[in-house]
Amino acid sequence: MGNPRTPQIPSSCDDILTDRPIGHIATIRPDGQLSVHPVSLMWDGMHVRVSTVKSRQKYRNLLQDPRVAISIPHRNNPARYVEIRGLAELTDDPDRSFINSVAKHYLNLDAYPFDNPSDERITITIHAKQVSAPAVPLADGPAAIMVATTVYP
Amino acid sequence: MGNPRTPQIPSSCDDILTDRPIGHIATIRPDGQLSVHPVSLMWDGMHVRVSTVKSRQKYRNLLQDPRVAISIPHRNNPARYVEIRGLAELTDDPDRSFINSVAKHYLNLDAYPFDNPSDERITITIHAKQVSAPAVPLADGPAAIMVATTVYP
Repeated sequence: MGNPRTPQIPSSCDDILTDRPIGHIATIRPDGQLSVHPVSLMWDGMHVRVSTVKSRQKYRNLLQDPRVAISIPHRNNPARYVEIRGLAELTDDPDRSFINSVAKHYLNLDAYPFDNPSDERITITIHAKQVSAPAVPLADGPAAIMVATTVYP
Repeated sequence: MGNPRTPQIPSSCDDILTDRPIGHIATIRPDGQLSVHPVSLMWDGMHVRVSTVKSRQKYRNLLQDPRVAISIPHRNNPARYVEIRGLAELTDDPDRSFINSVAKHYLNLDAYPFDNPSDERITITIHAKQVSAPAVPLADGPAAIMVATTVYP
């Protein structure tokens, strides 16, 4: 995209980040409890971005506390993953150009078809502070081993 | 297992929780940054449990702050998932019975084969405070839609 690469995210993660992965985004709720759930995401070579709407809890969470982390396994090989820890920047998506780019990438549709007209789209940009990208994290636990040996034989 | 079911986790999630899923566990690091990464897990009808070792960051995180959340997509259909938010209880696993039960469930091995002799195994028990288990979260965003339509055609 012409942007300088965020130094912490190695280029070896490009395929993980661009092959329509499901990330799991962690935020802190106003009651102090952690929250984490699956999301689609886009990677432009510098930032991971996620779309949400103002009525969603994670928008309210990030308005109050911008700390964020996301765990992104490879779509077809979760033995490889990248974890990004950092701060979220929230920007409006008034013309829905970002959510529509997600729909194009994930669904090959020109416009995201599932919003209500009143939904106010927000783009979450993750500014990385720390990155973990184990190449083959067999030593991390059985999750990776499971995937490599059992889930995708 | 004879335990009363934790009220917040619906039985409709049993297949998600028992079919060797990969969960993504979120914790808070001592520097205040959120962390989230993939793990295997066991479900006994009352609690989700995860194994780790004392040398791992998430053990240190949970020693300092027991808040935890885990996002668990169905192994073959991430359009369904369960999110559990709560507090972690840490217990020793001196005879490795818990990690070996994980190895049995995920790898069909009697003993987990990847530890070093010096690794001190810890079992993380997640005490649920809040649970989200969207049945078919199409409205939650494109991640679920992607999975239903693209990843597992």
